[in-house]
Amino acid sequence: MTQTVLALGRRERKQAETRRRLIEAARDQISEGGVESITITSITERADVAQGTFYNYFESRDAVIDALIFESVERLGQRLDALTAGMSDAAHIYSFSLRHLMNTALSDPAWGWVMIRLGIAHETLLQTLGPRAARDLQIGVDSGRFSIPDVSLAAAMTFGALLSAMHEYLGGTDRDAPSTHYAEYLLRMAGIPAHEAHEIVRLPLPALPEIADA
Amino acid sequence: MTQTVLALGRRERKQAETRRRLIEAARDQISEGGVESITITSITERADVAQGTFYNYFESRDAVIDALIFESVERLGQRLDALTAGMSDAAHIYSFSLRHLMNTALSDPAWGWVMIRLGIAHETLLQTLGPRAARDLQIGVDSGRFSIPDVSLAAAMTFGALLSAMHEYLGGTDRDAPSTHYAEYLLRMAGIPAHEAHEIVRLPLPALPEIADA
Repeated sequence: MTQTVLALGRRERKQAETRRRLIEAARDQISEGGVESITITSITERADVAQGTFYNYFESRDAVIDALIFESVERLGQRLDALTAGMSDAAHIYSFSLRHLMNTALSDPAWGWVMIRLGIAHETLLQTLGPRAARDLQIGVDSGRFSIPDVSLAAAMTFGALLSAMHEYLGGTDRDAPSTHYAEYLLRMAGIPAHEAHEIVRLPLPALPEIADA
Repeated sequence: MTQTVLALGRRERKQAETRRRLIEAARDQISEGGVESITITSITERADVAQGTFYNYFESRDAVIDALIFESVERLGQRLDALTAGMSDAAHIYSFSLRHLMNTALSDPAWGWVMIRLGIAHETLLQTLGPRAARDLQIGVDSGRFSIPDVSLAAAMTFGALLSAMHEYLGGTDRDAPSTHYAEYLLRMAGIPAHEAHEIVRLPLPALPEIADA
């Protein structure tokens, strides 16, 4: 009995490991060649997994991309939610979230390039980050902190501007350490006066809390 | 003699027509399938041109994309330059340019989708629009109208935000006629106070001048 449980444990660990390798292969492929360059062959070859095995883990090419977004973006979104849940100033919440997103891209460039390559029009990515951005902007509108006549448009534009800022930093060849100007511009966009945005983006950035595995 | 000239004229007209069809095929292919979906076969099949003929017109897949960008974006940039050359208020210049870019996407959705699909990281597109955006922002900084500590970052973020706004309008299913909120947000980003941005984006939009063929 114990032997069976251990054997099962080994098999499950191996399955989890194969799944992880497939997702990492998809991440590297997107990071280097863009999302349209993803094929099931390109993923299985990178992961050194038999092509037929792929379908034991994912239904389709899009399913592995969605899993990648869930594991690398949705999880980060959940950690941002945990960080900002107790905060009351919408401008602080927004600034901290933007700075953590940028810091993640800078400390893990493969992650940043996945964001850039998925781009402004990828449905799953938009569904993962869009509602969070809209929610945080709406908190600011409701409390009178932000002045935004069209929250969903502002959320989309924030996302595009942030991806472009990531590209500017990750793709640049001769740049100093990134400043927080990008967050300053985005607070201004939400209607925060320039001098105040300048102060808010310089607040100490609280660390992201760890959260339990899904 | 006259006969030869006429014959040459016909051949040149036919060549110009084939070139135009190849560029339009590239435009439609990008618009529908994204830039990574472009192959020389996909272009020649769409254009109904023999595959070998392609190389009489373009060196490579990338060359036809660059020609498309030149003809559809650089030309528009030149018309914007002609429109704004005599203007002195940087905020007006910026607002008018942004609104004409958006109006072009809305009146010619295939053009808008090409912009969205080329995305925030396409070198030629960035080289075509980036320097113009940076120049217009710099005019505002030099005249004290804009407050921008990092012009090239702000130009990149403006571009990403504008593409996202185009995607929001072209991809949306249940939207009213687009407002000028997108331009308002981008003027705020450049440091224009919200109440003033609100007025500037509502100024009558002067028509784009026609310019001679390149």
